[in-house]
Amino acid sequence: MSLYFDYDHIMAWEQRYRASLINSLGGFKSVVLVGTKNSKGQENLAIFSSLFHIGANPPLCGLIIRPDSVERHTFENIMETGFYTINHIKESFYQEAHQTSARYPREVSEFSASGLNSMYKNDFFAPFVQESNIQIGLSLQEKLELKINGTILLIGKIEMIVIPENCLGRDGFVDLTSAGTITCSGLDSYHRTEKIGRLPYAKISRE
Amino acid sequence: MSLYFDYDHIMAWEQRYRASLINSLGGFKSVVLVGTKNSKGQENLAIFSSLFHIGANPPLCGLIIRPDSVERHTFENIMETGFYTINHIKESFYQEAHQTSARYPREVSEFSASGLNSMYKNDFFAPFVQESNIQIGLSLQEKLELKINGTILLIGKIEMIVIPENCLGRDGFVDLTSAGTITCSGLDSYHRTEKIGRLPYAKISRE
Repeated sequence: MSLYFDYDHIMAWEQRYRASLINSLGGFKSVVLVGTKNSKGQENLAIFSSLFHIGANPPLCGLIIRPDSVERHTFENIMETGFYTINHIKESFYQEAHQTSARYPREVSEFSASGLNSMYKNDFFAPFVQESNIQIGLSLQEKLELKINGTILLIGKIEMIVIPENCLGRDGFVDLTSAGTITCSGLDSYHRTEKIGRLPYAKISRE
Repeated sequence: MSLYFDYDHIMAWEQRYRASLINSLGGFKSVVLVGTKNSKGQENLAIFSSLFHIGANPPLCGLIIRPDSVERHTFENIMETGFYTINHIKESFYQEAHQTSARYPREVSEFSASGLNSMYKNDFFAPFVQESNIQIGLSLQEKLELKINGTILLIGKIEMIVIPENCLGRDGFVDLTSAGTITCSGLDSYHRTEKIGRLPYAKISRE
């Protein structure tokens, strides 16, 4: 049995019900920890499920930020310093990662509050998550306001990458299932993955 | 053992190697079929892994399009008509879904070329994928060019939703693992998911 809803149904729903349903509809999402530091050295860590690929040449990622939410410290630190890190989440610390979404005051580091550890690499300004085995350092390139709902799109350039050697294939593919990277859906649901398969480049005549 | 790469390493890589690696780095992605029709009635279907949630009130999704690629027919149809559908992919037809990424000429419908079936619902202009059990109808709201690499961000408003009754929780959560929705990573890797768990709204004092 399928249920059908139109725009009027959606807008009549109670706000949290609608947020949960609409957040689920987009499919499985990347879920990562974003590490930042302000110019006074105060570290911040926040979980995001709005990361997406924009391009490989140059290497670019997008991140949607709601500046009126718990995400605002991350946003302010990125705007102030220009740097941030993206850290993949493993099942072994997904509860600590989720805990970073609590509304801690600015002077509290979500690293210590959640029990995760910060680390620095190769003089990169922003802190990485020590527990993550895939770590990416980014520099802010562009900030676009999406006027339609007041969210902000931050576009970052990948400045450095750390990946486990045994997850990197000869063709550049990074095996995220082997790396233990998890995925999420909706507002609060976490999932591990199992490989179905990789498929060859699709051609018109299908042999 | 971890491998470290900086921006100069990344830019020195062979193009397909870089595309594969950078596409993997963003984590697991939503993978969906986008259905469109032009004003002459020609249907088009294309697989996308660049869908992301923008907001729930109003319900908005973003889609990144490379207009110089196989995605251009989808882009042209959306610009011409203003409507498109998003259809979740199940393991039972992931090969057919992948096949829609082949470079078919404009007059070929990827529905028939891939063996998937189009269907229409409630007078919505664009075609849905009959094999999908989660189907979303969208209207184009905004087109933003990302000047940094020439890609286009299309923002769509959700006009209608079809979901299986047994996947919808009382709080609005849609259980995508039960629905059989798959996820992807990199350019060509498909994955099923297993639930780890849902976590309660995070609070500062952690009991």
